[in-house]
Amino acid sequence: MKRGIHILPIEVRFGDCDPAGIIYFPRYFDFFHQAMESWFPRHLGLGYESLIRGQRLGFPAVHTEADFRRPSRFGERVEVAMRVLAVGGSSITFGYEVSGPEGELRATGRSVCVVMDLDPNSPTHERAVPIPSDLRVRIEAFGVGSEAGPEG
Amino acid sequence: MKRGIHILPIEVRFGDCDPAGIIYFPRYFDFFHQAMESWFPRHLGLGYESLIRGQRLGFPAVHTEADFRRPSRFGERVEVAMRVLAVGGSSITFGYEVSGPEGELRATGRSVCVVMDLDPNSPTHERAVPIPSDLRVRIEAFGVGSEAGPEG
Amino acid sequence: MKRGIHILPIEVRFGDCDPAGIIYFPRYFDFFHQAMESWFPRHLGLGYESLIRGQRLGFPAVHTEADFRRPSRFGERVEVAMRVLAVGGSSITFGYEVSGPEGELRATGRSVCVVMDLDPNSPTHERAVPIPSDLRVRIEAFGVGSEAGPEG
Amino acid sequence: MKRGIHILPIEVRFGDCDPAGIIYFPRYFDFFHQAMESWFPRHLGLGYESLIRGQRLGFPAVHTEADFRRPSRFGERVEVAMRVLAVGGSSITFGYEVSGPEGELRATGRSVCVVMDLDPNSPTHERAVPIPSDLRVRIEAFGVGSEAGPEG
Repeated sequence: MKRGIHILPIEVRFGDCDPAGIIYFPRYFDFFHQAMESWFPRHLGLGYESLIRGQRLGFPAVHTEADFRRPSRFGERVEVAMRVLAVGGSSITFGYEVSGPEGELRATGRSVCVVMDLDPNSPTHERAVPIPSDLRVRIEAFGVGSEAGPEG
Repeated sequence: MKRGIHILPIEVRFGDCDPAGIIYFPRYFDFFHQAMESWFPRHLGLGYESLIRGQRLGFPAVHTEADFRRPSRFGERVEVAMRVLAVGGSSITFGYEVSGPEGELRATGRSVCVVMDLDPNSPTHERAVPIPSDLRVRIEAFGVGSEAGPEG
Repeated sequence: MKRGIHILPIEVRFGDCDPAGIIYFPRYFDFFHQAMESWFPRHLGLGYESLIRGQRLGFPAVHTEADFRRPSRFGERVEVAMRVLAVGGSSITFGYEVSGPEGELRATGRSVCVVMDLDPNSPTHERAVPIPSDLRVRIEAFGVGSEAGPEG
Repeated sequence: MKRGIHILPIEVRFGDCDPAGIIYFPRYFDFFHQAMESWFPRHLGLGYESLIRGQRLGFPAVHTEADFRRPSRFGERVEVAMRVLAVGGSSITFGYEVSGPEGELRATGRSVCVVMDLDPNSPTHERAVPIPSDLRVRIEAFGVGSEAGPEG
């Protein structure tokens, strides 16, 4: 595992594609979310599910964007490479690169998520809250910044 | 409104269709669920959302099936006609017919849903429970049985 | 109909929402696409389906983005308001605003789509092509620019 | 690999689940389809994509059904076990079992697919056609029948 990069391979399925035979573009954002979900257990040692159901913390996107360079088709295996571009007081910015079987760039993306209190009994219910220090320490150990990569 | 039939018109969208240009068949089950959701407020006077979030009752399917006769394409407007085929102690059986712009049958389906207690503090949490009598009365007023229909 | 604005009402469904009970954010991009699809027949007099299957023109997004301000829940009726922000040589930029039942802004978005040749027998297959003049005339008649709106 | 069984592991994602926190049931049919898609290359030596785009053969479902026994939640890894229950003149019947992390049965399903001619220039376009003998031989080598299993 390279430091600061999380890789999620994805088999592009028939049902991911539209009548033009290529990935229906909203699906890319689902792929981005899948990358984030799988990053928690693999790189931070925290279950995404246990954060949500146990610690009652959610990570809704407040901004997201993507640029699409080349289409991807069903039957292909693509890779989503995710980095943490920045960590703020209560937000995390993720960067995404989707590449095809030959490593060629297919799409890029970026999402800004806030850490949200999901506890219905809390005074800050459904409000952004500071990133818990334990989570922040783990994210920083993973590596933050677009230059993250080859060293590990 | 015919008694015992709930109609939901659906515009078939690009994103509902697969690389063959026709509705990706799992989407039909989403259409069936949309029909059920919209039936509660329109015919029973009960918000589906308020049943789930307020009364803490869910309606998960325990069985579902569909037969596909003719494909449907994006750009078409189809209709889902839903009937209540049977009401048991804690289950409701729905029947579905999807027809195309000329009224021709495209697909049929059937789902058996149970009424489930979603209250995490209840001893019957995530278990099937008897259909509340108020709900049963409303369903019977809507009309139960495959013969339901034309009378007005 | 106001000039330069296309409105698509959307019933938020159970299946549009995630375990937090709110719209799973990739679905917003599906809503944006649905708005674009329904704009062609309603405001341009052209079937989206006939453009794709008949004229062999596609409108893939090369860039898209969204900002999420307030969550939306199943059982709510939201509205997507779409404008054409700009028309280039072979691209169209759409702007989106999603508002809730009280008119309050829930999300905004923007997509840049290119007009693509889908004819497998054409030398420009799967390449961006100039917007056909008939299509351009119809888009300009609809109204272009963020100021579009109240006059008509 | 056991003879006659194809296993597809699936990570249940946040976006697969509904506001009740469990897999939105139409998604099971997508999982079933994913199992079929991945079976072609892994067990038959044929790309599903090349059958569709190269040989112009499709495999639309004419009937599908599922029974849901226990819910599955995001963060879980489930397994879809697929068998070929029967092969007819132009149809293939698939059986599916979804099991949870401890091997416990979560859902079962069955789909009948027909082999369809997708070639727009063929006289049998969009009609069921006999299963090509090469494909039939490969399916029989994989193993047909519900008893398929442990021997290999």
